[in-house]
Amino acid sequence: MRALFLLPLLLVLILYSGAAPHDAKLGPDDGHFLPRPLIIEYPSSHSASSSDHGEGAAFRSSSWQDQDESRLRCDSWRVAGEANNLAPWKTVPQECAGYVKAYMTGKAYEFDLEMVAQEAGAYAKGILLAGDGRDAWVFDVDETLLSNLPYYADHQYGSEVFDGHQFDRWVEKARAPAIEPSLKLYNALLELGLKIILLTGRSEAHRSVTVDNLERAGFQSWDKLLLRDVSDRGKTAVGYKSQKRGEIVGEGYRILGNSGDQWSDLVGLSTGERSFKLPNAMYYIP
Amino acid sequence: MRALFLLPLLLVLILYSGAAPHDAKLGPDDGHFLPRPLIIEYPSSHSASSSDHGEGAAFRSSSWQDQDESRLRCDSWRVAGEANNLAPWKTVPQECAGYVKAYMTGKAYEFDLEMVAQEAGAYAKGILLAGDGRDAWVFDVDETLLSNLPYYADHQYGSEVFDGHQFDRWVEKARAPAIEPSLKLYNALLELGLKIILLTGRSEAHRSVTVDNLERAGFQSWDKLLLRDVSDRGKTAVGYKSQKRGEIVGEGYRILGNSGDQWSDLVGLSTGERSFKLPNAMYYIP
Repeated sequence: MRALFLLPLLLVLILYSGAAPHDAKLGPDDGHFLPRPLIIEYPSSHSASSSDHGEGAAFRSSSWQDQDESRLRCDSWRVAGEANNLAPWKTVPQECAGYVKAYMTGKAYEFDLEMVAQEAGAYAKGILLAGDGRDAWVFDVDETLLSNLPYYADHQYGSEVFDGHQFDRWVEKARAPAIEPSLKLYNALLELGLKIILLTGRSEAHRSVTVDNLERAGFQSWDKLLLRDVSDRGKTAVGYKSQKRGEIVGEGYRILGNSGDQWSDLVGLSTGERSFKLPNAMYYIP
Repeated sequence: MRALFLLPLLLVLILYSGAAPHDAKLGPDDGHFLPRPLIIEYPSSHSASSSDHGEGAAFRSSSWQDQDESRLRCDSWRVAGEANNLAPWKTVPQECAGYVKAYMTGKAYEFDLEMVAQEAGAYAKGILLAGDGRDAWVFDVDETLLSNLPYYADHQYGSEVFDGHQFDRWVEKARAPAIEPSLKLYNALLELGLKIILLTGRSEAHRSVTVDNLERAGFQSWDKLLLRDVSDRGKTAVGYKSQKRGEIVGEGYRILGNSGDQWSDLVGLSTGERSFKLPNAMYYIP
């Protein structure tokens, strides 16, 4: 395991810390305007600051006996997230900070991305398309087509409270690389004749940088790029995306597949024929 | 990793083998009437017999370079299943046989079960109950409340084609142990005043052995135990369980939580306020 060298650092209590939700981009700016070094700060004892969120606690720590157990507990936490079992969370559990960094920067995340792209591709190949230009596939953007790992590398891979202002500055650079397995899937879907609809929680104000970034990353063609308008402010991700998918269906599209790294991309209304959950251990959008 | 010693055996192509679905209990009896020794048969080369299921293939093998990669690929396969990303599958991929055995018999499965039970319990504690006797929680039975691991230990932990006749004989013994974290959750829900509804794909003919088994394992009280009647034969698990949940809601129950080890327990209609996916790497019920 790539994470083994980090394990001595992981034996710490876990509960949630209070912070603004990622999607809402309401987090206070924490003043880190300069590039930050890749230092992950490991708490050295049980966290007193995060002990008031017992209701939604992902797991209890009393029986964490050794490093192997810590790694497995973090594994359980991550997998529970992928299975949509977790209550909303604001930051990666502190004792899983090193685990999540190792996961997101190692082969496991890469393989997980490949697996879901391959499953989606195999499914798409097996669909009988109507061929009337209304066979559609919906993609989320962040952590689905574009990777914000360079940003999160400077922000402790989700262990730091999300800061919408800083993230906006990253978005405006338009430098997020493609998630390669998603790019391959994307091109395969275009090849099959599917129409691509991009549905993102990014703001309409970021349309042009998003277009720039997508094109620079290799995404060359889509039917629609839907972003949050001023009128969509305050809507939950589930509500906003359900409404937009409803409009897509209302225009006659058949949503045959839907890919996203958040369950809020995939549940709600007009969810389409099949959903594909891309891995993401860094943040949760309700 | 507990699976490390098995890794030299895992570098083999994976595709699906053709077999009857678990839930349909249509598999041919393979004649293993006697207890089988705990031998896992590892194919020694790329499997020719399973190469005709490319459409639904979970992953490709061309780039599997070492043992660590094999384990990570099996991890990706398992997590993809927990996230409902996989096409229906009939047996565990051959090169993940050792991985799945190690997972199901080791601490990882145990911790995953604890994690989902704790999340469910924390959620339940936070619900405001109406207290009118209609606040309900739906549980699946097999691999949710009762563990069939002793059976699957004799049947290669899902690497052997499912045999409904043999499984029925195991069910009739009524000796499946409780999944302990689920039993704790179960009792906590009763304590909170929730009504328990058991909804299983087991046949009505197995009602009395199921009641015996549940009571022997420590499950002492429930409002309803719903099993597949003759009229439910041929229905998919999703269809059957959706219909039954619809009837439950029609009787005035509010399904506040729904626990199952299969996505077919959790999707469809009348799915309730929240779902909890218990881990299961051994079989898939469509």
